[in-house]
Amino acid sequence: MRVAIVGAGVAGLSCGQALLSAGAEVHWFDKGRATAGRASAKRAFGGHVDLGAQYFTARHVAFREQVERWQQQQLVAPWPAKLYSFAEGHLQPSADDIKRYVGLPAMHSPWRSGLPEQAITLSCRIQAMSYQQGWQLQAEDGRSFSGFDALVLALPPAQASELLTQDEDLRQQVPVSMLQPCHAIALALSEPIAHPATAVFVKDRPVSWVACNSDKPGRQSDSQHWVLHFNPEFSQQQLAARADELSLLAQAELSLLFQQDVLVTQSLHQRWLYAIVDAEQGAPGVLISRRFPCVVAGDWCLGGRVENAWLAGQQAAKAVFHV
Amino acid sequence: MRVAIVGAGVAGLSCGQALLSAGAEVHWFDKGRATAGRASAKRAFGGHVDLGAQYFTARHVAFREQVERWQQQQLVAPWPAKLYSFAEGHLQPSADDIKRYVGLPAMHSPWRSGLPEQAITLSCRIQAMSYQQGWQLQAEDGRSFSGFDALVLALPPAQASELLTQDEDLRQQVPVSMLQPCHAIALALSEPIAHPATAVFVKDRPVSWVACNSDKPGRQSDSQHWVLHFNPEFSQQQLAARADELSLLAQAELSLLFQQDVLVTQSLHQRWLYAIVDAEQGAPGVLISRRFPCVVAGDWCLGGRVENAWLAGQQAAKAVFHV
Repeated sequence: MRVAIVGAGVAGLSCGQALLSAGAEVHWFDKGRATAGRASAKRAFGGHVDLGAQYFTARHVAFREQVERWQQQQLVAPWPAKLYSFAEGHLQPSADDIKRYVGLPAMHSPWRSGLPEQAITLSCRIQAMSYQQGWQLQAEDGRSFSGFDALVLALPPAQASELLTQDEDLRQQVPVSMLQPCHAIALALSEPIAHPATAVFVKDRPVSWVACNSDKPGRQSDSQHWVLHFNPEFSQQQLAARADELSLLAQAELSLLFQQDVLVTQSLHQRWLYAIVDAEQGAPGVLISRRFPCVVAGDWCLGGRVENAWLAGQQAAKAVFHV
Repeated sequence: MRVAIVGAGVAGLSCGQALLSAGAEVHWFDKGRATAGRASAKRAFGGHVDLGAQYFTARHVAFREQVERWQQQQLVAPWPAKLYSFAEGHLQPSADDIKRYVGLPAMHSPWRSGLPEQAITLSCRIQAMSYQQGWQLQAEDGRSFSGFDALVLALPPAQASELLTQDEDLRQQVPVSMLQPCHAIALALSEPIAHPATAVFVKDRPVSWVACNSDKPGRQSDSQHWVLHFNPEFSQQQLAARADELSLLAQAELSLLFQQDVLVTQSLHQRWLYAIVDAEQGAPGVLISRRFPCVVAGDWCLGGRVENAWLAGQQAAKAVFHV
């Protein structure tokens, strides 16, 4: 069985790895220059900076077993963050004590481990798909790929929807506006912040998350640096904002949170167009076509978060054998 | 007044030209490498080949006046096609005698004439837009553009919809699946076809249109060549088909229509993802936001066809002054 997976983020990689283990032949396509999607980190500040996924939890037993294997391979470590919350102008320690993990040395490390490089086509935006006996895929640059028995769309819902022109029934089930945007900014500081907090959940401010990336286990770095996520409402409203504007705002937020001046030496911006699940829209589950051997999967199928991306990928792999 | 127009197809160019005449400052953005969208021709076979729009009509008085001006500038000429229809296996002359025009020397020529080159940014896919006092646009390659008082999305509905994340009300009005795909194939022949027909409307076959491009006025060419359009149903079903497969099919169709062998020396393929209006979905008109100074326009607003793209652009320009 030959399976094409469009989207090599956490869900797509999880699905493909499960299919490989089950003996299928797998090929991934991704428009990005690297795998792991929102879990991919950027090289900067003398190491890797996690601009997307900040950590992950392991509530589900199957994922916990996977995380344990990764820990043995030193691809994952617990992150004993000093967690605070900021609300109504007050910064205080958080009672939240759920176990958080990060990839080593960067967030993408566990997902990329053991991938067969020759089975991955990067910088390749699939623009059209059609089914006649097998699947045929057309990339924007004119390349054509064919002979797949099944297809997994491991994409944000808006992008999956665009490809499903042949399958109106399935397309109708895709919640196109479910993933909300997120502006992420990383700031390298000339002086470390003098405060015990290493991660802060923020309320009622433009930012919703602040974390000291250089505090995470196994991170190399030439200076203390922080990652800030702007909340979905702000990110949506300022969707086209420039990196320099956002950096200044992030600096001001950091300063306000910790009540001290911060001097920024370098900054980094990433706009995630499709990042945060809108929980009010529910969770549709992994979607399976009734017309073609095609499955649609992503974190958004199960309510968002890294762990659910992995689980959705596993479910999609099972579904592939029944389509 | 500074206006950004995303999409430099016929509607976008028409809109921008009208705005320029009214004294506005206009900037166009297009993801393609050239302007005129579906009216753009490709360089091939020793000249230009019209793979998209095949001709245009001028039913509306305002457009007729525009076409007359273009005729005086030798940018447009009538195309006295020898029109046939093919149905139930029979090829016969068509009674249709509406006046058809083509651009000179290529279909895109009139639309591109008089464009201020410095006001056009090509190969630039706008990925996000947000409004705060003025519009800010973000391109996929990271470039940022700001300071626009109004914005016109002159795009296929699916692409306009993707950008309208800030304006759910307007997004709901965009008929995302209204434009159907079209595979276009051009075939250069070693021997001319021995038949008087130069254009054929085809029924009940995979192709719906066949025309002798080298017969059009003012076309340079090193051989007789024909353009075939596959119908929306076939194009949808075979959306990811390869160029070589489609060329063979087109050759067989041409042979069947004219009941003679045709020998192909070169072929050319273009897949239009969004091409033909699904007339059953009605015509929503030019769409105007109630929240932001933003207008959405395209041929699909008025039922499709080149003339309606031009008219929609003119209407959008008027609307811009009232948003």
